[in-house]
Amino acid sequence: ELAALTAQQFQSGLLAGKKVVITAGPTREAIDPVRYISNHSSGKMGYALAEAAAEAGATTILISGPTQLATPDRVQRLDVTSAQEMYDATMASLEGCDLFIASAAVADYRPAQLAEQKIKKTGQDTMTIELVKNPDIVTAVAASQPKPYTVGFAAETQDVVSYARGKLERKKLDLVIANDVSQAGIGFNSDRNAVTLVWPTDEETLAENSKTQLARDLIARISAKIT
Amino acid sequence: ELAALTAQQFQSGLLAGKKVVITAGPTREAIDPVRYISNHSSGKMGYALAEAAAEAGATTILISGPTQLATPDRVQRLDVTSAQEMYDATMASLEGCDLFIASAAVADYRPAQLAEQKIKKTGQDTMTIELVKNPDIVTAVAASQPKPYTVGFAAETQDVVSYARGKLERKKLDLVIANDVSQAGIGFNSDRNAVTLVWPTDEETLAENSKTQLARDLIARISAKIT
Repeated sequence: ELAALTAQQFQSGLLAGKKVVITAGPTREAIDPVRYISNHSSGKMGYALAEAAAEAGATTILISGPTQLATPDRVQRLDVTSAQEMYDATMASLEGCDLFIASAAVADYRPAQLAEQKIKKTGQDTMTIELVKNPDIVTAVAASQPKPYTVGFAAETQDVVSYARGKLERKKLDLVIANDVSQAGIGFNSDRNAVTLVWPTDEETLAENSKTQLARDLIARISAKIT
Repeated sequence: ELAALTAQQFQSGLLAGKKVVITAGPTREAIDPVRYISNHSSGKMGYALAEAAAEAGATTILISGPTQLATPDRVQRLDVTSAQEMYDATMASLEGCDLFIASAAVADYRPAQLAEQKIKKTGQDTMTIELVKNPDIVTAVAASQPKPYTVGFAAETQDVVSYARGKLERKKLDLVIANDVSQAGIGFNSDRNAVTLVWPTDEETLAENSKTQLARDLIARISAKIT
């Protein structure tokens, strides 16, 4: 309790007067009215970042895919389902945005056709789903004018840091937070995480910690860059 | 509370000495370590049926896909993720089974290949997922010897009852519980439902009700057939 209070006092005001937009959770891409493609993101890291940003005094908008999480205090939450909806909500939230953090696990592809009725099982032993690419939200934000400080995530199962650096450069991001989701006990659906911050000119690893504490540390580091 | 007590007393003993196996919830079919195909089943109807069966005195096994629900009192719950795991758990639970209720929304198909590493986004604008058929759990149970009284569900968005009768005959089931998941306020993820019971020689519609009460009514009707 004392530690929490101290952390809060430490962070208080770091982002006063700033507007922060954060995406969180998975997206769901409908195949038909009952089936969908999704992923194992719980949204916990994004919600923790939103909480830490609000603690730091930012006006904080959390654009969330389907999760089981409670909205943090003083955070304005917009619920979306698909990647396209998340893209639209993000673009509509960018005015005056100082910091954008893309922590959602957005589906890269969605089914090319959305069946209006539940697809019936056929006699066939195989079936094919055709997918088309979704809009790339973090790339679109990084290309917007004026550009907010734009932070991406790289949740990978191998070569995490080198992939993160490639993403940073390819998408013209300001920071990529890399985490290895193949490690047991951290990442997706866990309350703990360990990440490597990949900036344009250096890297920094934050040891395993609760997502709450890690989020405060991340917000403190990012605040130092944008204020 | 009085109504609940009365219902419980009414049902008490209807399935005494019987073994009931119920599947519930969605399955998740992995595409890679982070992505999967699933569906909108909440598991609520299956959990309500397990609760009602246990209330009625049955030894009750609930084989559950991923849900957010608490295990009902006196119910033995086995957690599974994929259709193949649900099939295996079901087959391993059939010994001495008097009644099997397939309420889970089992994926008909799974990705043909499970990628060991997260699939990277390519430059391509389209992608294809090849699927192969999963084992048909309720058909396998209905074909087992000795055959338990076998109940299937038909969650459809159109032509619900005629589809249910086709399923009853094709899979040699004893009862199909048909519900129209396209109706707002009932079915998937709702606390309420309305169903039509499709028996070999007749049909009966149960009006919209809470899933708890509907489950008790269903267990009472099914009990009359097997005792």
